[in-house]
Amino acid sequence: MASSQEEKGCFGNLIGRIIGTAKDAQKLGKEDPRRIVHSLKVGLAISLVSLFYYFDFSYEGFGVSAMWAVMTVVVVFEFSVGATLGKGINRAIATLLGGALGVALHRLASFAGEKIECVILGISVFLIASVATYVRFFPKVKARFDYGLLIFILTFSLISVSGYRDDEVIDMAYKRLSTILIGGAATVFICVFVCPVWAGEDFHKLTAANVDKLGIFLEGFEREYFHGSKKGSQDKTASLSQYKSVLNSKGIEDSLVNFAKWEPRHGKFRYRQPWNQYLKVGSLTRECAYKIDALNARLNSSVQAPMEARARIQELCSKMCSECSLALRELATAINTMTRPSTVDSHVVNAKTAAQKLKSCLKTKSSLWPDMDLLDVIPLLTDASLLIDIVSCTVKITDSVHELSSKSKFKAPPENKMAKQTSRERAARSTSIGSHSFTITVE
Amino acid sequence: MASSQEEKGCFGNLIGRIIGTAKDAQKLGKEDPRRIVHSLKVGLAISLVSLFYYFDFSYEGFGVSAMWAVMTVVVVFEFSVGATLGKGINRAIATLLGGALGVALHRLASFAGEKIECVILGISVFLIASVATYVRFFPKVKARFDYGLLIFILTFSLISVSGYRDDEVIDMAYKRLSTILIGGAATVFICVFVCPVWAGEDFHKLTAANVDKLGIFLEGFEREYFHGSKKGSQDKTASLSQYKSVLNSKGIEDSLVNFAKWEPRHGKFRYRQPWNQYLKVGSLTRECAYKIDALNARLNSSVQAPMEARARIQELCSKMCSECSLALRELATAINTMTRPSTVDSHVVNAKTAAQKLKSCLKTKSSLWPDMDLLDVIPLLTDASLLIDIVSCTVKITDSVHELSSKSKFKAPPENKMAKQTSRERAARSTSIGSHSFTITVE
Repeated sequence: MASSQEEKGCFGNLIGRIIGTAKDAQKLGKEDPRRIVHSLKVGLAISLVSLFYYFDFSYEGFGVSAMWAVMTVVVVFEFSVGATLGKGINRAIATLLGGALGVALHRLASFAGEKIECVILGISVFLIASVATYVRFFPKVKARFDYGLLIFILTFSLISVSGYRDDEVIDMAYKRLSTILIGGAATVFICVFVCPVWAGEDFHKLTAANVDKLGIFLEGFEREYFHGSKKGSQDKTASLSQYKSVLNSKGIEDSLVNFAKWEPRHGKFRYRQPWNQYLKVGSLTRECAYKIDALNARLNSSVQAPMEARARIQELCSKMCSECSLALRELATAINTMTRPSTVDSHVVNAKTAAQKLKSCLKTKSSLWPDMDLLDVIPLLTDASLLIDIVSCTVKITDSVHELSSKSKFKAPPENKMAKQTSRERAARSTSIGSHSFTITVE
Repeated sequence: MASSQEEKGCFGNLIGRIIGTAKDAQKLGKEDPRRIVHSLKVGLAISLVSLFYYFDFSYEGFGVSAMWAVMTVVVVFEFSVGATLGKGINRAIATLLGGALGVALHRLASFAGEKIECVILGISVFLIASVATYVRFFPKVKARFDYGLLIFILTFSLISVSGYRDDEVIDMAYKRLSTILIGGAATVFICVFVCPVWAGEDFHKLTAANVDKLGIFLEGFEREYFHGSKKGSQDKTASLSQYKSVLNSKGIEDSLVNFAKWEPRHGKFRYRQPWNQYLKVGSLTRECAYKIDALNARLNSSVQAPMEARARIQELCSKMCSECSLALRELATAINTMTRPSTVDSHVVNAKTAAQKLKSCLKTKSSLWPDMDLLDVIPLLTDASLLIDIVSCTVKITDSVHELSSKSKFKAPPENKMAKQTSRERAARSTSIGSHSFTITVE
């Protein structure tokens, strides 16, 4: 009886785990439905290449070498077009070079006697494999050609090794290269023409989304912290902590940019879009996210902001917060739609003016607060100092987005917006305090 | 004449680039001489396996399958033992499973008619490749079994594809598995027994070095900022900016821990050392590094700390700084030598006491500074607030290292140190303000 119950428990446990895994799988698919499409694409490519092989008409004479076609599909097919093209090009060129070097070396060695040939080949394989492995440590090579060097070593060794056994080296090299090209072509075709995933587009959207997340945080922070609205706090807390993903985005950005550099012109993106400028925007965004993280810690601290005499400072802080939020969100939209940001300069100028006013306010007002406890002011000063930092970060982000918009030739904003912009901008520029790269520091 | 000069220019340019690359290569080798050793090891393994093939005695009957041995060496041989073992185990198990499934499916399908067989095999390859590709998106699977799934798809497809052509499926599966085992065994043997590089040891050292870098910064900061020593500034600035590498160490730590988990017992490290606790220490160290980054920005700011009436606050700040530095450096030594830290608690208590004193000082002293400009105090308050944050970070790091020392069973410190410790600790505990996880916040 007990053992049967135990069995039932085990069985129930197993079913529970299966259901859990199924739910995880469903969640993964909902997060990004392109994952499901990608899996089906890989299945399609592999079974297509296998069927070609099965019906034998195109592989006449390839024999065992045909397995390289299947192998290429499995190994080269990656999630994004850029990653696939990068691996494919690496593999094709490396196979060509490795094969050519292998054949050439084999020919050279064959002029010597049979015993010396073996020594020459052994030493060459040792030397070339060692040097190529060492080259893989160069950071720039590692980022873009790591896979190519691996395949180079592989092909070179295989050609040399098979060269030991018979003289069909050139035939083998030819077969290997052509089957790899067939597999590679099938992969690239399916990857590019069936629901393609462009790394460049993802990188573009990620950059815009990260800037937007900072704006969303500042918007929510201003509402909750300065106006003390607490309703619907569940949803709002979620929207407030979105920015946290920005903190750890460096790795993703670096790999996306490496993939994007392989991609041809597509949609709104040219071949070699100024991706490095995107990286710059990304790193400034991350810098700002760290300041925002510090501000967020203030939100959770038990001490509430004093709501009494320092209304003026609070007003200025709130102003900085909302203007930065508006500026960041507009920048995000500008990146996303690839139109030049039109009203962002006025928001930046407003934020800078508020920061300037805050500085002079602190200078003059201090004499008005003679009997105040210093410890009570610290929270307010911390907020003010962080917000001033955030303003200067926003200025830097704005500058780098302006640079991006000129480098990637963003569209001009629509006419009606333009008119609004120029009049606003004129008004704004008159109150401007120096150039965009001007940074405000209270300390 | 001009063209000959141009030629010379080109030639000079080429030589310049070659010399530059050679210098880079030398630098890479000096940074970590194990890179050179690794390259030679890979060359050795590949040429050894090739020579076996050449002399034909062990490959009697393997024929073309022997290439899998060379291939396995090239693909599996990684820099650290953990990465190599991980890839090797993944490859062996995946080949076994993929091969078995391929053979089983082929047998099942062969009961049907020839035309249906082709459809069944095609659909199965499609389904299994799709599902396996989808499973690779699970984050936990991706971290440890990504390579295994790739090889599973590969072997399964290859066995099925070759199954179409002739009935030597089992023979092929057997040959593929045994040559992979030969290649894998050679790789693992050379990787483990010739100058092994242990990912676990590297991770251990990295954790200690990162904690140490924070201590070095605080030491230098205290000297330069509070005592204003400026001599030998070139060297000191270099030592001050060492901590910056800690900020971006998350990626390296994550990959090292993934490798370390594959490694067997070696030296002072058990199989499955509590690596996750190391990760925890690492993430707290990084948190502290961000505070230190903010402190570093203060060092470069043009405003100098006021050196007048606020000597008391400066003294306390300097005290916090130096005690945290001592604590962190001792923790680093403790991790490095795997001995329990002995005097660290007293430093932590001293730092906490200084922080407490600073708080009360700010409370009472503010009334003593009635006519002071608020803007003048802000730099000092910012320093104080940052240093108090750093003290609380140090407390957290200390706690996690204590936990690590009990989990990994660190050695007890030598006798003479023990005596010093217990007396100090007793003195320390009596002035202790709460438990170790007590965090001090001014705000």
